[in-house]
Amino acid sequence: MSIESLLNESMNSWMLGGGKEADIVLSSRVRLARNLEGIPFPNRASDEDLAVVAKEIAGSMEDLKKATQHEYIFADMEELSPLDRYVLVEKHIISPQHVQEVQHRALLAAEDASVSIMINEEDHLRIQCMTAGLELGEALDLANRVDDSLEAKHSFGFNEQMGYLTACPTNLGTGLRASVMLHLPVLVLTRQINRVIGAATQIGLAVRGFYGEGTEAVGNVFQISNQLTLGYTENEIIDNLNSVVRQIVEQERKARRLLLAESKDTLSDRIWRSFGILRYARSITGQEALTMLSEVRLGIDMGIVTDVPENIFNELLVTTRPNFLQKLAMNRGLHSEHRDQLRAKIIRKRLREVDKYV
Amino acid sequence: MSIESLLNESMNSWMLGGGKEADIVLSSRVRLARNLEGIPFPNRASDEDLAVVAKEIAGSMEDLKKATQHEYIFADMEELSPLDRYVLVEKHIISPQHVQEVQHRALLAAEDASVSIMINEEDHLRIQCMTAGLELGEALDLANRVDDSLEAKHSFGFNEQMGYLTACPTNLGTGLRASVMLHLPVLVLTRQINRVIGAATQIGLAVRGFYGEGTEAVGNVFQISNQLTLGYTENEIIDNLNSVVRQIVEQERKARRLLLAESKDTLSDRIWRSFGILRYARSITGQEALTMLSEVRLGIDMGIVTDVPENIFNELLVTTRPNFLQKLAMNRGLHSEHRDQLRAKIIRKRLREVDKYV
Repeated sequence: MSIESLLNESMNSWMLGGGKEADIVLSSRVRLARNLEGIPFPNRASDEDLAVVAKEIAGSMEDLKKATQHEYIFADMEELSPLDRYVLVEKHIISPQHVQEVQHRALLAAEDASVSIMINEEDHLRIQCMTAGLELGEALDLANRVDDSLEAKHSFGFNEQMGYLTACPTNLGTGLRASVMLHLPVLVLTRQINRVIGAATQIGLAVRGFYGEGTEAVGNVFQISNQLTLGYTENEIIDNLNSVVRQIVEQERKARRLLLAESKDTLSDRIWRSFGILRYARSITGQEALTMLSEVRLGIDMGIVTDVPENIFNELLVTTRPNFLQKLAMNRGLHSEHRDQLRAKIIRKRLREVDKYV
Repeated sequence: MSIESLLNESMNSWMLGGGKEADIVLSSRVRLARNLEGIPFPNRASDEDLAVVAKEIAGSMEDLKKATQHEYIFADMEELSPLDRYVLVEKHIISPQHVQEVQHRALLAAEDASVSIMINEEDHLRIQCMTAGLELGEALDLANRVDDSLEAKHSFGFNEQMGYLTACPTNLGTGLRASVMLHLPVLVLTRQINRVIGAATQIGLAVRGFYGEGTEAVGNVFQISNQLTLGYTENEIIDNLNSVVRQIVEQERKARRLLLAESKDTLSDRIWRSFGILRYARSITGQEALTMLSEVRLGIDMGIVTDVPENIFNELLVTTRPNFLQKLAMNRGLHSEHRDQLRAKIIRKRLREVDKYV
């Protein structure tokens, strides 16, 4: 079991689809921020401190295996090529921040990427658990098992009044960030999305693009997460996010029903044209691919495109990202032009496989 | 053998492709204007005069059969539904002018549409012969056989100095108009087409769209014809047009070679995207269909799209025209919206048949 398998696999477990509200909710994620007691936070820690943290956590693989029934892979960020690091970011296994400094930074991940622990990111530990569909409870449960397993051997910085101590005060308390990836093409199409985002923001949630803070909502995929970690229990945070997400899911579904009733023909034409372009294009940018894949996925969810597996969207969302393509090209330097061609080729090949049904 | 077969057939003989320069020249046409001696031109003729002309020519079917080895179909324009008349126009079997007045107007056509004689259009007789590719000599030869066969039984208005007499002075003399349908997508793409049209116009040729005078060059198809009929022999007219067409063909070929050398990837992507849209769209306007069919045909001619028969372009050029679609829909009134859907369906079905190869 090496990091290569994690890098080369086109689908992580949570991309295989399934889970609740899977027609709209792609995945759920729970992240816990933890720090080892008595060692400065990474931004103030010495090289020795960081090395101690990495070594301590690396030693927990067996415990984690028992607690979660997963095999674990340890990777020293410094030993990975820059390309491999970016592939991990694209696959949401690590954060973009985790590749900015690499010395003494590490990753401990389950073989199916359902659990990934970033070591020495902003905090000593960022425990991240992903599931397909709207399954925040399940993700929290998994994260708690990881957390408990680690806490059984290590002391985490904790204060009776504040809860878990974290490098940034916004994570104080539970250290919990829960987030959900939503595919909202019809709320975007009917221009209701800004109202939805506005409402979510007002009640203390953050709405971001596919790659978190500062990224655009390419492919009509939005990430919604809690902002506050202090003053609420973990279950309150999860329940609150869950209930807002269910409302948004209902709004997207309602918009889809209306659209289907009012403009099925136009919609169907638009979706099939996107399918046709994806099926035959010889060059396609990442942005365009995501836009069209989003339409095709909508077509699948609305019964317009049949016999095409819906997780082809999740899969191609990852396999058509720049760094994954670069990796596929065996690290040969790819110009953006060739990357667009390779992307088109991968999509074409994949859609050709399912084309016999459509 | 009835007019229905001519109306329902999706491909006339000259659409089957072949002939010289068939990668660029879709078809050649020769038209002779003739009038029966002693009867006023149609615009000044009485109903009785027109009826006499129609009756006289209708009686020539056996002679024409012998002269050209074709079966002939006679159709009284008045007895055709307006829709059927327009289908004949779309198929280039009759001119748009020939459906404006229908009383005593008629059509005498070979079963494969290689010969069509419009009776009482602007002149008593408009003999039109079509072939695939650049075969003006062959078309003239066929027209001459029809002309000779008719002239053996009827006296045509003729003047030793002027030649054949015609309703409009622009047709005086030979009464000959020769024209060629050219597919010039790359001269259009590289914006050289206006220079080419300008040069052709300066030496006395007319350049028009797919449906003759006043129509746009949809699908990058241009019709080039001689303007002058007086003061030249028939062979001079044909030779002159032939030589200009060959020059234009060379220019289009040169532009294609350059494009292939410089931007094969971009071109290939563009062509395949058009193929993809045609292959899957659920609604498509006539204009858009022609534009994309033109690109796919270019792809076939340039070896980018292989294993697709090139005459699929000629065929779909006709079967996706509004009136032919209406006819296909069994005369049920088709809204333009449903026509666009039916057009997309026909194209989809046809491309699906060839899709297994690509």
